[in-house]
Amino acid sequence: MIKYAILGYGVVGGGVAEVMEEQKQKIAALVGEPVELKYILVRHNYPGDRFADRMVMNFSIIENDPEVKIVAEVIGGASAAYDYTKRALLAGKSVVSSNKELVAMHGAELCDIARKKGVNYLFEGSVGGGIPILRPLTQCLAANRIDEVFGILNGTTNYILTAMDEQGRSFGDALKTAQELGYAEADPTADVEGIDACRKTAILADLSFGYNMDPTKIPTSGITRVTEADLELAHALGYTVKLLGRAVRTPGGCCAFVEPHLVPMTHLLASVGGVMNACVVRGSAVGEVMFYGPGAGKRPTASAVAGDIVDAAQHQAFRKDTDLGRSGGILAPADDLLCRWYVRSPDDPDLVQSAFPGAVPVYGSSQECGFITELMDRKTLASKLAAVEAGAAYRVLE
Amino acid sequence: MIKYAILGYGVVGGGVAEVMEEQKQKIAALVGEPVELKYILVRHNYPGDRFADRMVMNFSIIENDPEVKIVAEVIGGASAAYDYTKRALLAGKSVVSSNKELVAMHGAELCDIARKKGVNYLFEGSVGGGIPILRPLTQCLAANRIDEVFGILNGTTNYILTAMDEQGRSFGDALKTAQELGYAEADPTADVEGIDACRKTAILADLSFGYNMDPTKIPTSGITRVTEADLELAHALGYTVKLLGRAVRTPGGCCAFVEPHLVPMTHLLASVGGVMNACVVRGSAVGEVMFYGPGAGKRPTASAVAGDIVDAAQHQAFRKDTDLGRSGGILAPADDLLCRWYVRSPDDPDLVQSAFPGAVPVYGSSQECGFITELMDRKTLASKLAAVEAGAAYRVLE
Repeated sequence: MIKYAILGYGVVGGGVAEVMEEQKQKIAALVGEPVELKYILVRHNYPGDRFADRMVMNFSIIENDPEVKIVAEVIGGASAAYDYTKRALLAGKSVVSSNKELVAMHGAELCDIARKKGVNYLFEGSVGGGIPILRPLTQCLAANRIDEVFGILNGTTNYILTAMDEQGRSFGDALKTAQELGYAEADPTADVEGIDACRKTAILADLSFGYNMDPTKIPTSGITRVTEADLELAHALGYTVKLLGRAVRTPGGCCAFVEPHLVPMTHLLASVGGVMNACVVRGSAVGEVMFYGPGAGKRPTASAVAGDIVDAAQHQAFRKDTDLGRSGGILAPADDLLCRWYVRSPDDPDLVQSAFPGAVPVYGSSQECGFITELMDRKTLASKLAAVEAGAAYRVLE
Repeated sequence: MIKYAILGYGVVGGGVAEVMEEQKQKIAALVGEPVELKYILVRHNYPGDRFADRMVMNFSIIENDPEVKIVAEVIGGASAAYDYTKRALLAGKSVVSSNKELVAMHGAELCDIARKKGVNYLFEGSVGGGIPILRPLTQCLAANRIDEVFGILNGTTNYILTAMDEQGRSFGDALKTAQELGYAEADPTADVEGIDACRKTAILADLSFGYNMDPTKIPTSGITRVTEADLELAHALGYTVKLLGRAVRTPGGCCAFVEPHLVPMTHLLASVGGVMNACVVRGSAVGEVMFYGPGAGKRPTASAVAGDIVDAAQHQAFRKDTDLGRSGGILAPADDLLCRWYVRSPDDPDLVQSAFPGAVPVYGSSQECGFITELMDRKTLASKLAAVEAGAAYRVLE
């Protein structure tokens, strides 16, 4: 019998208890013994709840109970969650988590403690919700040099962009619907400004390249300035607009950024709609693979957290493959990365073509045109845009 | 230092040696010690080959060398590969393989030997080539009841169907191009008749439901009778045609089959084109996730096999999660599975609608019409088709 505790009884915490209970026979068979919930750390009582008898309000009870071998942290944020995770690891318990903020900010330190204590810190649910991404990336693709990882890592912004794309709606209008449907928070900043995607990008970059990536240093721009015209012009050019988090290997280092991109309609990522997430990995041996599914939600996220509990119960020794990079990496400037760019401009074709020879501007229902540049870095683009007014300039995914 | 051997030096065998060599530093860091190629079992000499000094022609040398801890079997087929795999496992070596035929036919027995000897039999590369599928399915989704697994499991047939779809070509014409491009064998039977997809479906069904699935009992039909008209009519109805291998949980058992399906254009699977593969998993907690990538080829398949070598080097004890089912399962008749059906018919709309009330036939450039039925089992469909001539009847993916 292996006993575990859940820290936090919000949506995901409730989902973890539920899923673990539903599959307890299967899990016992996989682990070789039952895996049982001993405590749930709560901030108030839940009278009548099926797990009410296991609820505690003091973390020390869990910390000091040697019977508890695994702790699932689903509190979120980087304050109490950080404190409890550290104390649980130091007490020799494995910790599993879906807390991207904590993993992105303090994951390397927490992995370091786990390594020293010979336990595990696992966080499959921190990127892509229920989609298996981190294990496939680090284990199945272990024999690859990872060259790039990128994806649609935030469902709220993908819902908004899909609604703008398919229904010709404005950002504000689509955001309002997302809020009504519960896909966006009342304060949507963390989603629409790309902060949530940035944390996940930091985790992916770290696992891919072995560097400790500081999420606050990752250039991040969200989708608040994407217009209906951008979607319309993108379509006319053979693309759609997606917010991508990207981590790219560069000579001697790596760069990471979160920006709206033009994705070719021929790339499978362009067909990922609504709140779904998808993550593409480019590896030296495998080429390109993609993982797709629900990036958030009670049961999908619980699926990932519960999968980590099962893993921690099966393999109690520290796993090197999900270790986060300890050394600070050479974070190359994303601006140096060559790409083609989409530009939206109110200027006439002659002016556009004098600055961007060979560009073929297309028009939609607005007065503005859209065109795709040659390969260039951001500085070159900026110098050319001195002569052409740009309403938007987004990278094109190659 | 952990030493391994490769059995077979064809395309995949060469790829495995190459990929392991390229990533030897990364792999040594992950495993904690170098993983070194000691032998390659060959049938003739390769003078001047970089690994010529490690080639042997007698399997007993590998079998009797206690230094060899891991054997990568990439011979293919179920005769010599079966014999060598058994002997390697009995000699206490872990075996990794991309041999779907062998895994589908004898996997349960080989897993049983591995379990008894406390070693591993791993076969990530046997389904989906380089795409991580089996580990995500069995490990990341461990806390799910798997309800269904289905996918595009054969690149040759997907290439042919994509060419028929996008270029309006006939099956024979598209097959010829596939052969010229090296995507199809001179004798394409195993691919176009669905036999290859059937083996992979058996492996997926076994891992998903825990039953030992006999591939020879899985109803299998390929794509040789799919016509240009089917693709055209499917499009007019909002679908495309894909060859799917499906393993479905039923009350008290499961069923599995390989058949051409109409896939809604709104499902991501419809956008999987060319030689690419994709596998969808429906789980009780996660909902639907999909894994996409190259399902064959030298380096993609080598990526999977090498990933298994790394895993076997890291975890030398038997893994329960990739164990194949031992008990023969209740293989429910696929014919009982309710679905809607696409029917192509030369009959006129009145006749069609008298047999299938509510059907809305569409027309393309041929004389035939296509329509979608209500939900029904195959027997009901067959009874209705007594009154309507059908050129084709394929399941619709729900």
